[in-house]
Amino acid sequence: MGGSLKRSTRFRGHKLGDGLWVIMNDIYTASLSRLIEEFEKLPGIGPKTAERLAFHILKAEPREAMALADAIKDVKNKIKRCEICTGLSEQAVCQICSDPRRDKSLICVVEQPKDVISLEKTGACKWVYHVLGGHIAPLEGIEPGDLTIDKLVERVREGSVKEVIMATNPNMAGDGTALYISSLLRAMGVKITRLARGLPTGSTIEYASGKMLTDAIIGRQELE
Amino acid sequence: MGGSLKRSTRFRGHKLGDGLWVIMNDIYTASLSRLIEEFEKLPGIGPKTAERLAFHILKAEPREAMALADAIKDVKNKIKRCEICTGLSEQAVCQICSDPRRDKSLICVVEQPKDVISLEKTGACKWVYHVLGGHIAPLEGIEPGDLTIDKLVERVREGSVKEVIMATNPNMAGDGTALYISSLLRAMGVKITRLARGLPTGSTIEYASGKMLTDAIIGRQELE
Repeated sequence: MGGSLKRSTRFRGHKLGDGLWVIMNDIYTASLSRLIEEFEKLPGIGPKTAERLAFHILKAEPREAMALADAIKDVKNKIKRCEICTGLSEQAVCQICSDPRRDKSLICVVEQPKDVISLEKTGACKWVYHVLGGHIAPLEGIEPGDLTIDKLVERVREGSVKEVIMATNPNMAGDGTALYISSLLRAMGVKITRLARGLPTGSTIEYASGKMLTDAIIGRQELE
Repeated sequence: MGGSLKRSTRFRGHKLGDGLWVIMNDIYTASLSRLIEEFEKLPGIGPKTAERLAFHILKAEPREAMALADAIKDVKNKIKRCEICTGLSEQAVCQICSDPRRDKSLICVVEQPKDVISLEKTGACKWVYHVLGGHIAPLEGIEPGDLTIDKLVERVREGSVKEVIMATNPNMAGDGTALYISSLLRAMGVKITRLARGLPTGSTIEYASGKMLTDAIIGRQELE
């Protein structure tokens, strides 16, 4: 126990100063040190995991290591924003916006590209999306003009949209953003909905917060 | 809880078959899918972590992402084996073997390059190393000839080595390998030692195994 603690303290040594850096370099070789450092920059990857990953790369088939390196570069070089929904895309228009089976009269508004993926994983969505790029947060300096709200208003103004589903995060910032957008769209005669609030499936009432229970009571649904 | 379980089940869907793969591709864009897949191949990285890392790369500064990709390629292209100790090196002879401050008359024998790093982190070693490349394991088809034992015998035969310190793993395979090597070297008049066995510093006697306690009793040291 004591031994491993001591080792891990020493391990972080290579960040402390030039002198220690040289010592670590001695041990690892320069390129292995650099790879460990780069891995450590990733979220949730500590020094021990970074070292383990670097040694895996060292032992791995060259083909496998090169595939990872190329995949990283491709993500940076190939992915851009869809011209219509501003979601992730490798073409001018993303696969969802260009899919003829999607109902273009329903636009689901989300904050981040990642939210599109979470919703799509349910397999329950036949609509198209609009990615805002965040939420309104004046205290952090994020104004409505920093999001893609203008582009959404434009899409609705074209006239073929029947319903806009707000799927911003169920918290203060997300609700505020949804409210702001709905105030802009309401005058255009489009139906505006938001995702249901209530008890998370699989949870227990015992551990539900007061806010969750209140939402569940207000939005109670008839059993059929 | 149920929601997240369902999502993570679906998430792994892209490995199940071609049909599902297409669905996931739809969601992620091809290069993002590929990066997630490549991250998943790393040890200890599950689908959720792979997705998180891939999104981190997507959002990261291009410079940072390229640095990681290049570091991976460099490790594969630049690192080779030291001509003397067969440890990791970017030159023909590694930094430890070419360091004039090291005592070349002491050779510490380890199984893997990673063991050199663990020992070096203690800061207690002024010796040089010999990396065997594994341990003898006839059942797995690893014979003495598969390791770098010949090279070690040659180093000792040159005559300037006074002591060989066995630092193979303290288990059956490591002990067997150390025993085999010492039987070869003993005739050459070199002193052969192995790392001390005993209680791990920071542990408690309550939780020490019988084997650990036996080692500690046999190897008990005089208090000075």
